[in-house]
Order: sequence, then structure tokens, then C-alpha cells
Amino acid sequence: MQEPSNFYTQKGYLQNSLNPLTPTMEDYLEMIFRMLLRSPVVRIGELSSQLNVKPSSSTKIVQLLKEKGFIDYEQYGYVKLTKEGEELGAYLYRRHNILHDFFCTVNHTTNELELVEMVEHFINKSTLKNLELLTHYLHDHKY
Amino acid sequence: MQEPSNFYTQKGYLQNSLNPLTPTMEDYLEMIFRMLLRSPVVRIGELSSQLNVKPSSSTKIVQLLKEKGFIDYEQYGYVKLTKEGEELGAYLYRRHNILHDFFCTVNHTTNELELVEMVEHFINKSTLKNLELLTHYLHDHKY
Repeated sequence: MQEPSNFYTQKGYLQNSLNPLTPTMEDYLEMIFRMLLRSPVVRIGELSSQLNVKPSSSTKIVQLLKEKGFIDYEQYGYVKLTKEGEELGAYLYRRHNILHDFFCTVNHTTNELELVEMVEHFINKSTLKNLELLTHYLHDHKY
Repeated sequence: MQEPSNFYTQKGYLQNSLNPLTPTMEDYLEMIFRMLLRSPVVRIGELSSQLNVKPSSSTKIVQLLKEKGFIDYEQYGYVKLTKEGEELGAYLYRRHNILHDFFCTVNHTTNELELVEMVEHFINKSTLKNLELLTHYLHDHKY
């Protein structure tokens, strides 16, 4: 038998990952942050509507984010971010926008929401920085 | 309540996807194709070793790929691709290489295996074509 290779399945990489949040948890935190930019409070019902999920799913994920220290308050259906939640939410929101700008530039389109929602979870910080620089470069060169 | 938005969670997008193969199945098909480039036959044991999975997992996924018409022969632990399997395997292998070249170029690195293995499943055909063109452009411009 050959020596084990460096290849893993996507599932294998996910199991080895040190990221404390699953893609789903990241989607929720990013959306909560996005909603708090235009509204002082976020309700579970509105969050569920924005993510096209059932309120019972939102309640479950919000509870997990609370246990992990990203949400510290949830009463009467209101959700509030901790300092850590706000920092990570801001990063996820920024990551989303950089990737959306990049893929729209590459594809000469104005909406790449689905693509970005799929890949964003796997783009590490250094790659994000480099994609941001590349997007600026492409804009400067009218690519 | 607000109107439902166009956002979905990653899980939501995966559930809406028309792709008949899961990321795991794609990983197997791509690896079988890769191994057949340098060997006339692929054995379940070697496949498992290359993907760092248990042989029982390989047997299960190979069986699913057989049911979907991408593998038509499997005896004494040997795996063979159908015409459809070879075509799709070639596409997945090509997609992998284009993305690896792209991310190495962006990050000025020589190994982006983990990143590519994570994102490749979500890159559609038109984006792949555009990323290939972009990589050529960047090489030409000595980016």
C-alpha cells in the first residue's frame, strides 16, 4: 500500500478544522451583524425570515452561538452580540463583501450571492487579504 | 415580518442544489481519475489510502458512484470509470488544477491543496472559466 497522501476529502478537512463555528453558525452571525447595521434590535422571527429558515432552527443556532460566547442576551426573542460576537460578525460581513466584489469583478456580473455564500466559509484570512488586493488591482487595471 | 430575502444558509443552498454529487463523491471521483492517470487500475485500498479514509468508507462511496452511473465495474477491489465517470472525473481534475494555479498565483505560494479541496465543490463552470482566464492574465502581467 502507498504512503498516505496529503489529500483528504472535504469532510476530512472539516473534521480537522480548528474553526469553532460551523458554516451555518457563521451564516447566522454574519446575518445578525448585517441586520444590526440598520436596526437597533434583531428578533428571532426576522432573522429566520432573512435566512429563509424556520424559527425553531434559528432558536437552536442562536443558543449554540450563545454557548460559544458570541451572543450574550436573548429575551423576548431579541438577539444581542457580545464584544467577541461583534468582532467576528464584522469580520464575516467584511469577508462576504470582499468576496462578492471579487467574484462580480471576475465574472463581470453584479450578483454573486449564492457563490459567495457557498465559498466564504473556507477562505482563510491571508487569502482574503490577497483577494482584496487583487480586486483593487483589477479595478485599477479596468479588468 | 419582512419579506423573505435572497439569503440562505450554506445548508439551504446545498439543499437547493441540482448537483447529483455530494462534495465527498466529487472528491472520490476526482481522486480515481487522478490515480488512473498513472496506473492502469485503482484498488479500493489504495484509493482509501490516498484520501486518508477507511476502506469501508471508500466501499460505500464507490457503491453510490456506481449507482449513479459513474463507475461500472468493481471486482476484486478494482474500480473502473464509465464514460460519464471519466468525463466528469476529467472535469473535476481540471477544476482542481485551475483553482490550485489560481490560488497559488494570488497567494504567491506553491501549495494551496487544503484551500482548493474546500472551495472547489462550489465553483460553477462559468466562474471556473473566468478564473482560468484571470490566472492567464495575471501570469502575463507577472502579478
